[in-house]
Amino acid sequence: MSRDVIFQKLRQDPFAQFLGIELLDMRDGYAKTALTVQENMLNAHGTPHGGVVFSLADAAFAAASNSHGQVAVALDVDIHFVTAASLGTRLYAEATEEHLGHRIALYRLAVTTEDGTLIALCHGTVYRKEQSLV
Amino acid sequence: MSRDVIFQKLRQDPFAQFLGIELLDMRDGYAKTALTVQENMLNAHGTPHGGVVFSLADAAFAAASNSHGQVAVALDVDIHFVTAASLGTRLYAEATEEHLGHRIALYRLAVTTEDGTLIALCHGTVYRKEQSLV
Amino acid sequence: MSRDVIFQKLRQDPFAQFLGIELLDMRDGYAKTALTVQENMLNAHGTPHGGVVFSLADAAFAAASNSHGQVAVALDVDIHFVTAASLGTRLYAEATEEHLGHRIALYRLAVTTEDGTLIALCHGTVYRKEQSLV
Amino acid sequence: MSRDVIFQKLRQDPFAQFLGIELLDMRDGYAKTALTVQENMLNAHGTPHGGVVFSLADAAFAAASNSHGQVAVALDVDIHFVTAASLGTRLYAEATEEHLGHRIALYRLAVTTEDGTLIALCHGTVYRKEQSLV
Repeated sequence: MSRDVIFQKLRQDPFAQFLGIELLDMRDGYAKTALTVQENMLNAHGTPHGGVVFSLADAAFAAASNSHGQVAVALDVDIHFVTAASLGTRLYAEATEEHLGHRIALYRLAVTTEDGTLIALCHGTVYRKEQSLV
Repeated sequence: MSRDVIFQKLRQDPFAQFLGIELLDMRDGYAKTALTVQENMLNAHGTPHGGVVFSLADAAFAAASNSHGQVAVALDVDIHFVTAASLGTRLYAEATEEHLGHRIALYRLAVTTEDGTLIALCHGTVYRKEQSLV
Repeated sequence: MSRDVIFQKLRQDPFAQFLGIELLDMRDGYAKTALTVQENMLNAHGTPHGGVVFSLADAAFAAASNSHGQVAVALDVDIHFVTAASLGTRLYAEATEEHLGHRIALYRLAVTTEDGTLIALCHGTVYRKEQSLV
Repeated sequence: MSRDVIFQKLRQDPFAQFLGIELLDMRDGYAKTALTVQENMLNAHGTPHGGVVFSLADAAFAAASNSHGQVAVALDVDIHFVTAASLGTRLYAEATEEHLGHRIALYRLAVTTEDGTLIALCHGTVYRKEQSLV
């Protein structure tokens, strides 16, 4: 199964598309996503909603963990909110593989701004199913 | 400051409104939110996106932790995905206070279906600022 | 395989014995452990070391997750430290099953004092192997 | 306050000493600890107890987060168990600072063997008090 087919499938994630999350890059065990913070993505304090930051990280996590072509489903993610970004900021999430086991794999997810300011940091665990992605 | 004023402010969270998340209830240290899973909330596997489930839990978390009228900002959340919900399902999130300290407070966030099936389970920590919410 | 055999096996956990952790109770998906904080269990600040509190919770987690007689190995645990206990205090940890899946199970672990003060709160995930415990 | 004074204080952590955890290195926002797995550190499955691995990571975390000379107390730690080590193995934990805020700081804790095999991976958050360590 080609990398392109997997990439196309993951790019068409409906919720990521709905939020305007772009899948910029995907390699074995790695993915990068981006999003620009819009007005409708703020919370009651006027900063980007935790759900937006999480969704961006989760999209990179899904792409990196499914990049091997085997279906990977998220078991858990812990997210640490470090700095509040502001309206209009372009945010990036990078998912890197910390461990790839037969059934379980672990990823580091870092959300940053263009200039490298850390916005949020996560670890995410997936369960890898027998079936292939496409 | 009245409970109603806080409730109205939290209900107007732009991202929660954008996703159709309803704030059903809010009391001191407690909140309940709901959302119906739409087509644009699915992921590449056809199940509700992790970001949607997280956002619903996070909206309850924000309301419960800000319910005392003092600004509370999320430090971290760990989410455990238990069961995949399906399209059209109505999901509920309840946030309950496990600990309320001077600066730090801890909440349990449970996402369930109408019939009580556990979809996701979280703990979330906030830092409570000096300033009041409104 | 009888409950007694499992209980005896889990009670003989060498590290739990080394620390003086007692396995007080074990039922399907539940366990309770206890420990009294000794001088050699303090940290540099003079309060119980995070590793001691974690170990007590982890012992309850191991017993509850292996209580079904199928080998369960910990994937991850998140621990939230709520209140610092003091020297000589008797601490209890209770592990309760939040979800029991075919391969994955999720537990809540609460560490408290005799009078119910919450010391630490965790969620822990296990991977359940094919093999049985004894 | 000199680095040496802080280092000496953290080295004398009673529980770390009790387990034979050595504080190998400490610099601003960084620390490294080590421990050799003994028979009394195993669990019922015959592998190093989760509490031992956690304690080693926690000792590095405490040293790194208190390295600035300001008292830092742990709020939460999430630990992901990646590979089971074996009896007699020498384990190392390195804590590196991911973010240092005025009140909150975040650390990555990695437990590895001599040859670099990843045993466990954590993120830990501290609350930084006004008072200084010594």
